[in-house]
Amino acid sequence: MKASIPILIGGRPLGGDAMPAIITPLVGRTRAMIFEEVAAIAPKKPNLLEWRIDFFEAIGDHQAVIDTALAIRQAASIPVLLTRRSVAEGGQSLAIDEAAVMAMYTAACQAKCIELIDYELSSAPADIEALRKVSRANGIGMILSYHNFQMTPDASTLDEKFAAAVRLGADVAKVAVMPHNDRDVLELLAATRRAREKHDLPLISIAMGGLGALSRIAGWIYGSSATFAIGQGCSAPGQIAIEDLRTALSIIRHAVLGESPGTPFGS
Amino acid sequence: MKASIPILIGGRPLGGDAMPAIITPLVGRTRAMIFEEVAAIAPKKPNLLEWRIDFFEAIGDHQAVIDTALAIRQAASIPVLLTRRSVAEGGQSLAIDEAAVMAMYTAACQAKCIELIDYELSSAPADIEALRKVSRANGIGMILSYHNFQMTPDASTLDEKFAAAVRLGADVAKVAVMPHNDRDVLELLAATRRAREKHDLPLISIAMGGLGALSRIAGWIYGSSATFAIGQGCSAPGQIAIEDLRTALSIIRHAVLGESPGTPFGS
Repeated sequence: MKASIPILIGGRPLGGDAMPAIITPLVGRTRAMIFEEVAAIAPKKPNLLEWRIDFFEAIGDHQAVIDTALAIRQAASIPVLLTRRSVAEGGQSLAIDEAAVMAMYTAACQAKCIELIDYELSSAPADIEALRKVSRANGIGMILSYHNFQMTPDASTLDEKFAAAVRLGADVAKVAVMPHNDRDVLELLAATRRAREKHDLPLISIAMGGLGALSRIAGWIYGSSATFAIGQGCSAPGQIAIEDLRTALSIIRHAVLGESPGTPFGS
Repeated sequence: MKASIPILIGGRPLGGDAMPAIITPLVGRTRAMIFEEVAAIAPKKPNLLEWRIDFFEAIGDHQAVIDTALAIRQAASIPVLLTRRSVAEGGQSLAIDEAAVMAMYTAACQAKCIELIDYELSSAPADIEALRKVSRANGIGMILSYHNFQMTPDASTLDEKFAAAVRLGADVAKVAVMPHNDRDVLELLAATRRAREKHDLPLISIAMGGLGALSRIAGWIYGSSATFAIGQGCSAPGQIAIEDLRTALSIIRHAVLGESPGTPFGS
């Protein structure tokens, strides 16, 4: 049984030795709203802030993006993951086209104002390749991701999503699916486990919705190196408040690993 | 997706509407030690006390067994499950033979001093049949159980254990296995799910040890109607303290079912 591989930020494992790292989303529309979120979330000490820039009104303004990212980092002292989630994969509709999204990601990488970016496997191969180059050149990690808000695909499709992320040079492979029943959640955990055995990179896997809550709490046992928690605003169905998630993780870690449940977790 | 079926005690669901019911073991050697345990555990309000009579020095003395059972019920106001776990399935070695164990179970059923008994599927068929008759005649529920402390058998064996319990007239079918890796835990949950779809009786399923901790917290999602927690003494590897188990269950129930995590759970 291989151990889960931590996500590295500047060569250091995100969240230290404790698995999983906790990621909380920022979903404000304006800079002011984002800073309200940061002020509320930073004291809860997630390991990574996912700035969901598809919510951000000024997504087309490179300087606004860069300034806001730098200000988030400064205010929170927590690494930032920059994510544009497409409408097809559960994100917000944008006023800008894909070329402008590429330009925005590129500008952010070059400004080194974020630590990680998330880009979707369903993007044009040339865009993935271009963004991989610019992110690598600037020392920015790249998550290649797959989201399915309709269903949980079959085992071979799940395996292929992880494999595609590896093939395309991802630093982290992410798969998030919607379960229709409790069996789908087991399928997602089993696919994560297979990916962990087969590939040598950090994984993030999530079964969304209430049914999938188990994956947010126990996915780390099966190879998922990070889990998403609600800081203030929710970015996907089934997310759990960070305090509750940390408590549940602490109890399960104690039971699974023999750690004391009193040990501060993931922070 | 079928809902899990609650264990009934006198026609009422154990633990009320909340899944799963929480069972804590009593493992004292003497009546005095048992009463120390009961005093410590009763305030924690488990839904069922499993009196592990294989630990009890006076197991061969019917009157001592009956008196102690009645006194436990009176002291705790919590239903009692009487269990002799055999050495082959992880229990203590006994000074009495199987005929005397049968006589002890029979006397306890006839005295109606307990609400449930647990007997092993590996017992002689004639003994299972006899105990089924006497328990039914006295209104005592019967768990037919399978424990494997060495490994997690393959899927068809797990399916057959649940089916055998049904065939032999169990009120509750219990399967507890030892996982060797995280995949075994998924297999146990999947088998529980298949049994829930196929059979119309309450199930209890457990993957033991640290690796299996997830099954104690999330087995109810897959059809296990009860989970074992440490009250004071541990009766199987991987058991979690009742307070921690209740906290984790509450958080997961909230995420899965949308219940408030502040809701008192299972009591």
